Amino acid sequence: MKHSSSSSSLGPGGLDLTQTFFKPINHAVPPTPTKRTKISVIGVGNVGMAIAQTILTQGLTDELSLVDVNPDKVHGEMLDLQHAAAFLPRTKIYASVDPAITAGSDLVIVTAGARQIADESRLNLLQRNVGLYSKIIPPLVNYSPDMILLIVSNPVDVLTHVAWKLSGLPPNRVIGSGTNLDSSRFRFLIADHLDVNAQDVQAYIVGEHGDSSVALWSSISVGGVPVLSFLEKQQVAYEKETLENIHQQVIQSAYEVIGLKGYTSWAIGYSAASLARAILRNQRSIHPVSVLAKGFYGIEVEGLFLSLPAQLGRGGVVAVTNVHLTDEEESRLRKSAETILQVQSQLGL
Amino acid sequence: MKHSSSSSSLGPGGLDLTQTFFKPINHAVPPTPTKRTKISVIGVGNVGMAIAQTILTQGLTDELSLVDVNPDKVHGEMLDLQHAAAFLPRTKIYASVDPAITAGSDLVIVTAGARQIADESRLNLLQRNVGLYSKIIPPLVNYSPDMILLIVSNPVDVLTHVAWKLSGLPPNRVIGSGTNLDSSRFRFLIADHLDVNAQDVQAYIVGEHGDSSVALWSSISVGGVPVLSFLEKQQVAYEKETLENIHQQVIQSAYEVIGLKGYTSWAIGYSAASLARAILRNQRSIHPVSVLAKGFYGIEVEGLFLSLPAQLGRGGVVAVTNVHLTDEEESRLRKSAETILQVQSQLGL
Amino acid sequence: MKHSSSSSSLGPGGLDLTQTFFKPINHAVPPTPTKRTKISVIGVGNVGMAIAQTILTQGLTDELSLVDVNPDKVHGEMLDLQHAAAFLPRTKIYASVDPAITAGSDLVIVTAGARQIADESRLNLLQRNVGLYSKIIPPLVNYSPDMILLIVSNPVDVLTHVAWKLSGLPPNRVIGSGTNLDSSRFRFLIADHLDVNAQDVQAYIVGEHGDSSVALWSSISVGGVPVLSFLEKQQVAYEKETLENIHQQVIQSAYEVIGLKGYTSWAIGYSAASLARAILRNQRSIHPVSVLAKGFYGIEVEGLFLSLPAQLGRGGVVAVTNVHLTDEEESRLRKSAETILQVQSQLGL
Amino acid sequence: MKHSSSSSSLGPGGLDLTQTFFKPINHAVPPTPTKRTKISVIGVGNVGMAIAQTILTQGLTDELSLVDVNPDKVHGEMLDLQHAAAFLPRTKIYASVDPAITAGSDLVIVTAGARQIADESRLNLLQRNVGLYSKIIPPLVNYSPDMILLIVSNPVDVLTHVAWKLSGLPPNRVIGSGTNLDSSRFRFLIADHLDVNAQDVQAYIVGEHGDSSVALWSSISVGGVPVLSFLEKQQVAYEKETLENIHQQVIQSAYEVIGLKGYTSWAIGYSAASLARAILRNQRSIHPVSVLAKGFYGIEVEGLFLSLPAQLGRGGVVAVTNVHLTDEEESRLRKSAETILQVQSQLGL
Repeated sequence: MKHSSSSSSLGPGGLDLTQTFFKPINHAVPPTPTKRTKISVIGVGNVGMAIAQTILTQGLTDELSLVDVNPDKVHGEMLDLQHAAAFLPRTKIYASVDPAITAGSDLVIVTAGARQIADESRLNLLQRNVGLYSKIIPPLVNYSPDMILLIVSNPVDVLTHVAWKLSGLPPNRVIGSGTNLDSSRFRFLIADHLDVNAQDVQAYIVGEHGDSSVALWSSISVGGVPVLSFLEKQQVAYEKETLENIHQQVIQSAYEVIGLKGYTSWAIGYSAASLARAILRNQRSIHPVSVLAKGFYGIEVEGLFLSLPAQLGRGGVVAVTNVHLTDEEESRLRKSAETILQVQSQLGL
Repeated sequence: MKHSSSSSSLGPGGLDLTQTFFKPINHAVPPTPTKRTKISVIGVGNVGMAIAQTILTQGLTDELSLVDVNPDKVHGEMLDLQHAAAFLPRTKIYASVDPAITAGSDLVIVTAGARQIADESRLNLLQRNVGLYSKIIPPLVNYSPDMILLIVSNPVDVLTHVAWKLSGLPPNRVIGSGTNLDSSRFRFLIADHLDVNAQDVQAYIVGEHGDSSVALWSSISVGGVPVLSFLEKQQVAYEKETLENIHQQVIQSAYEVIGLKGYTSWAIGYSAASLARAILRNQRSIHPVSVLAKGFYGIEVEGLFLSLPAQLGRGGVVAVTNVHLTDEEESRLRKSAETILQVQSQLGL
Repeated sequence: MKHSSSSSSLGPGGLDLTQTFFKPINHAVPPTPTKRTKISVIGVGNVGMAIAQTILTQGLTDELSLVDVNPDKVHGEMLDLQHAAAFLPRTKIYASVDPAITAGSDLVIVTAGARQIADESRLNLLQRNVGLYSKIIPPLVNYSPDMILLIVSNPVDVLTHVAWKLSGLPPNRVIGSGTNLDSSRFRFLIADHLDVNAQDVQAYIVGEHGDSSVALWSSISVGGVPVLSFLEKQQVAYEKETLENIHQQVIQSAYEVIGLKGYTSWAIGYSAASLARAILRNQRSIHPVSVLAKGFYGIEVEGLFLSLPAQLGRGGVVAVTNVHLTDEEESRLRKSAETILQVQSQLGL
Repeated sequence: MKHSSSSSSLGPGGLDLTQTFFKPINHAVPPTPTKRTKISVIGVGNVGMAIAQTILTQGLTDELSLVDVNPDKVHGEMLDLQHAAAFLPRTKIYASVDPAITAGSDLVIVTAGARQIADESRLNLLQRNVGLYSKIIPPLVNYSPDMILLIVSNPVDVLTHVAWKLSGLPPNRVIGSGTNLDSSRFRFLIADHLDVNAQDVQAYIVGEHGDSSVALWSSISVGGVPVLSFLEKQQVAYEKETLENIHQQVIQSAYEVIGLKGYTSWAIGYSAASLARAILRNQRSIHPVSVLAKGFYGIEVEGLFLSLPAQLGRGGVVAVTNVHLTDEEESRLRKSAETILQVQSQLGL
């Protein structure tokens, strides 16, 4: 199978050093069961490859498998990554159209999605994506029953719900990348304005990864200083309109990048890699990601996934932070939830 | 200037915290001159962006500037990288069509190149690239007279010669990425076959980055064991044909990846980032890169650039390793040199 | 000079490969002025070496020089670090009793301090340290007039004041490690209790690095949630006594570690390395460190150094965060300032 | 149990946020079995702590447990590492006098050793160390039956044999740190002399970690150029005496550092951390370490451990490189083996 192997055949009459160059150690006992870390990326478009390459550069996994419907593309991407072997820690890289190569994954990241056809309605596109997921997800779970499933395809909240349903996995092991990226954009805009390090800025965007996302103004702190209460105490007036502008800029960011370069890739790559690190290295760190929302912030509807500040570790979602929302924030979160539910009901989910 | 700025305006009536939130320290003396590291990438196609993103992920620079003729594309790529600010160490990222933003660069990496037009001869394409370089290189040198210039555009050896001529820089400060990538592919193929770590495999490909490249068989060692002399001593016969096959596989690699995915990007990105690290962190490490060859290995012709194992550090090329070549290797290196010179003479260089 | 050189002589009749193995590149023009990063550590006791080794492991500098009055000790420490060369990126390491080897440092970290003699009063010990500083600091400034000076010796606030006076440097370039470590301990205690990642906990201790340090309760946030206002809104009562206990535990930490293992080393090593990174990589990140306090938080006295949340970058202290303090916090900060001033007045400073 | 816990009690009336601040996610299914990486270090003297701290800085493990007979010392070292939590990726750190805390380790690194008493013979000291190992090793194997066991205590070859016997583990899972450090010193001396990067120097020292160690001159290559054959081809005479001097300098290195600073620590710390990385990240990289030698290089005696270039991965020793030795090298390796066997026979092993 030309496309599923990472081994390069050196041909007949090859320089077979394996027998003469090394002598395996002699032991009667069976080899130790290995505890390798394995990540699989499903879909090797711009987003999938930005994720795969960032994970590779950061040395987050011992094995990386790439799956795509296009055998040439996925084989070419594998080779292009493998050719960098001399510059990187050793990672085994596999590629195939067959999900069997994902077997035993610790983390499976799904970026696959149908492409919009001219004049196609958003609903029709989504229905095709749901169809795609119904083919993709069951075999992945079959091959890696203990995996954490990270959904990146859009609309991410609905597709995380779909993936959860199709997978039969417990909810703590199905996560959508959600507003983790929106929150980074939010932090960048604030940090750039203040000329500080974005890592010193705390700020969450929650809810739908999309136009109805909710900026938690009260969560913004810079270098440990809560900004809103700081302004109040300094009696500095700020206009609500200004805050809305910042949030609108975040919402427009994805559209802006797509308008300029045709797609987004690098930032979502870093975002997904940061989630992979939190999960696989059991960091118990807090990220705004799409999780099963029932029981949090007064959400009682079944089966709704949207982004909330969640603590991630080796077992997936460990807990959800109990942030205090203002009445307005709570009302917006409710509207964001309704937006998602409406789409789901159109799909008959 | 919409495209040359990294700052996001928060608009009129903005939340201006810079005045109230921070108090600058009070000092009568002028601020310390900063010693920031700055890398510029010229051309933000697949290759340029793979380089820029890898440099960013590996934290190799304090400032990164991107230049391209397409204002939308370069602005979109800048935003996409900036949006990852919360996931990375702080790096200032600039983008513009104007090379003025590269001012004060320590390292300038040129990936720009003309695209082949249907039915265009290779010579015509190259002439257009030389024309492009004559516009690009002089202002870059003007803005960063102390820079190291790393050429990645193809054909890399000829264009490194052209860039050197146009730049007026001393030869130790003009480097072509050359066969650094071919050598990584070579090491990967050997390592993959032996199931060892590619970092334990030493092996050089030198000469032209192209079909006339020269594999230095005597340079191959695995885990410190020189492979050829090992085989001799073990009286293991190996067929010359086999070795040629491995080398041919390396030469075909680029064509293979281009055939499968349409272009190469990741491996050249890691390759250029490894050279950037060697140079900027003054590693004095040895890499097969395109350097002014006169005086080495019996090459006496003026103005020829091709890949030789060169020691790189903060000042660029520090020295060239004096590898002993077999008669056949030397003859092949001579032929490789002639291939390059032939092209240069067609260009009237 | 046996102790000041890093070069190992291979003796008479040595294997001199430098002439035959490499050929330096031929260029008429003078070599490019290098822009190497250099850190010097003064004092190679447990603290100095933990700092030096952490800086080396994290690859923060191109050159590292170690200075100590004990020639054997400093030479032995240099060799012990150099012997790890095969496991680390290349860093030039120097050692000497002579501060001349620090010439051209970007950052000088002073950990040297007199040891307490039996029955010696704290004041007498401090007087001896001031005497030591008056010998150490002027030549360091002489050899590296553009350096940032980071003081780690205790009592750090008073000695940072002393170093600033002796150095004649502008105040933004003289920094004491201050409560950066206390704040990490504070964040660890809170994170450990909540089973979260300490990097998700924001919390500052400011003022004197010592018994009068001030915990800023209102600065504590976990995953972006301000803890105190969260508790208020949830109407959860918390006892002031409890908070005091946590702060007391932080204050006792240093005494506890010293009581158990005899000294502290690792945590202060990581703390100083984190400051080195912020400064040399121009991170503009916020750290509670000892800075010239005049003009901040109502402090108007001249020449007082104590810890405040300061923004650090390539030029040293860039700004001080304007945190809103409660009346009690402000009163405690004033008392902490008085404690330091009292010691300084005893010294006649 | 004051000394075995990493949790800091916040005392009665504590700020119990765990219940109100976070809401654990609700799931009926049992939590996913975690696949955490755990390293244990036995003995927290200078060597043990240099290893533990380097492993922590390099982020090689999710959990780190420290065991020592001195409860205060081991507790103090744990606290000192924990206090750096804000500066590091999250790692759980445990400490105790009780080896029970090592349960489920992937890698156990033993640095514990008896201290020499005045006028004690080397044999007597060794006998006491064997006695110590007979107490330490069996419970460690009991608590972590699947572990890789890395022995660092000296004399490392004999004690690796002892540990193997006591452990009942298959030989591929018992490794001595051996001449991995000597080889780094060797590479540093050569690199420093040539002013190249030590990572470009390949060179092995094998055999006993001690005075009878064997330098493999034919294994030395610099930047892929085999040095000895290079010199031959260039008709450069080199004196055997010179090479011996370099080797003697390596052998003297440990004595020199001990003479100057009293002990060695940093380089052995980096050496052990590099082995930990190769093993736990399944790097299949080659390192000169102490392995069961039977069947390699004509060694047929049972139960002898000495250093050979071994390929390390997740299962421990994967293979041994089949380097071609000169007659002299082979004869020296035999003598080195006899030196070790003589000591073992004195011990009645």
